[in-house]
Amino acid sequence: MSAIGISGLAHLFGIISIILLLVWLVHYREGIDYDSDDGFRVFNVHPLMMFLGFIFLVGEAIMAFQTVPGERPKGKFVHMTLHLIAIVLGIVGLCAVFKFHNMGNIADVYSLHSWIGISTFCLFGLQWLIGLITFMFPGAQAQTRARMLPWHRASGRVLLFMAICAAETGLMEKAGFIGLKAHHRETKLVNFTGLSILLFGVFVEMSVGVR
Amino acid sequence: MSAIGISGLAHLFGIISIILLLVWLVHYREGIDYDSDDGFRVFNVHPLMMFLGFIFLVGEAIMAFQTVPGERPKGKFVHMTLHLIAIVLGIVGLCAVFKFHNMGNIADVYSLHSWIGISTFCLFGLQWLIGLITFMFPGAQAQTRARMLPWHRASGRVLLFMAICAAETGLMEKAGFIGLKAHHRETKLVNFTGLSILLFGVFVEMSVGVR
Repeated sequence: MSAIGISGLAHLFGIISIILLLVWLVHYREGIDYDSDDGFRVFNVHPLMMFLGFIFLVGEAIMAFQTVPGERPKGKFVHMTLHLIAIVLGIVGLCAVFKFHNMGNIADVYSLHSWIGISTFCLFGLQWLIGLITFMFPGAQAQTRARMLPWHRASGRVLLFMAICAAETGLMEKAGFIGLKAHHRETKLVNFTGLSILLFGVFVEMSVGVR
Repeated sequence: MSAIGISGLAHLFGIISIILLLVWLVHYREGIDYDSDDGFRVFNVHPLMMFLGFIFLVGEAIMAFQTVPGERPKGKFVHMTLHLIAIVLGIVGLCAVFKFHNMGNIADVYSLHSWIGISTFCLFGLQWLIGLITFMFPGAQAQTRARMLPWHRASGRVLLFMAICAAETGLMEKAGFIGLKAHHRETKLVNFTGLSILLFGVFVEMSVGVR
């Protein structure tokens, strides 16, 4: 199977993950609304935005050099822009969870999920900024770029991996809070969502890893 | 920083993770004993064996071609043997959790953690077998090996990433079961353990990713 075939599988599992996540949040949970008086509807903005931004768009951005037709500068622009949108969605998602905590008087950033998530978000911002300065504006000298590129690539792959760890631990935390048990249908839905997100990450990593 | 420097950081976080895990299981939890009548002591064999086998030894095996001095066949032998020990430790760790479930009449393999873990274990066994047949005994033709190597490498990196997702979700599940709260000292210990395991994975991936 070619790298293009693998990125096809990545797109597929990305879309499956979005569908499963929406079914879960809208049908099984309370729905999604940032401005609601129901804290749980506010909270549900968090998993959706974090997945759409920090996993789906980031994965698509990583694969953009393979999947966007045309010259390399176009691929680079798509790569940078998708990451920028990811950061904006990520900020909305983080605001949603802090708003939910304020509404319910719940402690912030104490779980392993939140520690992994916050670290990933900060390092991601740093990576985006260093990438912008080095490869786009103002752009470093050719020699420096060539030296930085393997680091930029490896760091980007590791950050997607960290974001997926954040997603899986987040699903576990939520499953614990709502008391999901072995016989609940929702348990299986959450598990399939988690596996689908994991497979998206796996196929993104494979599509850039098999060279 | 060179790839060797990064693998040094990986060793460091590997050892920190073992220490934190032992402090947690022995000092904060019930201790570790496969043959105990106390189910929790039996259970504690699980996180230790899974980390030692499927994360620490696997990470060391991935880095073996850089860290083991001497010719490539020696590195290959160390790589294969560490993975074999990992599988044995993994089987002991899996038996421990099934024994614990039997003792307490708890349902098997229903959480996201267990789904990720079981998938990783099965794919890992497959990867080891295909690797053995292709690269060691009986060994494929040079052309086939060359075609398989990028796939073997990419799959191996993805499997370490899956194993770390399994570990992080496992820590979250346990934290939920024992009801860890924001103000507990144990919560911070579990979080630092999780971050340390994540950093081990990050540095292993970076050490083979930056070429």
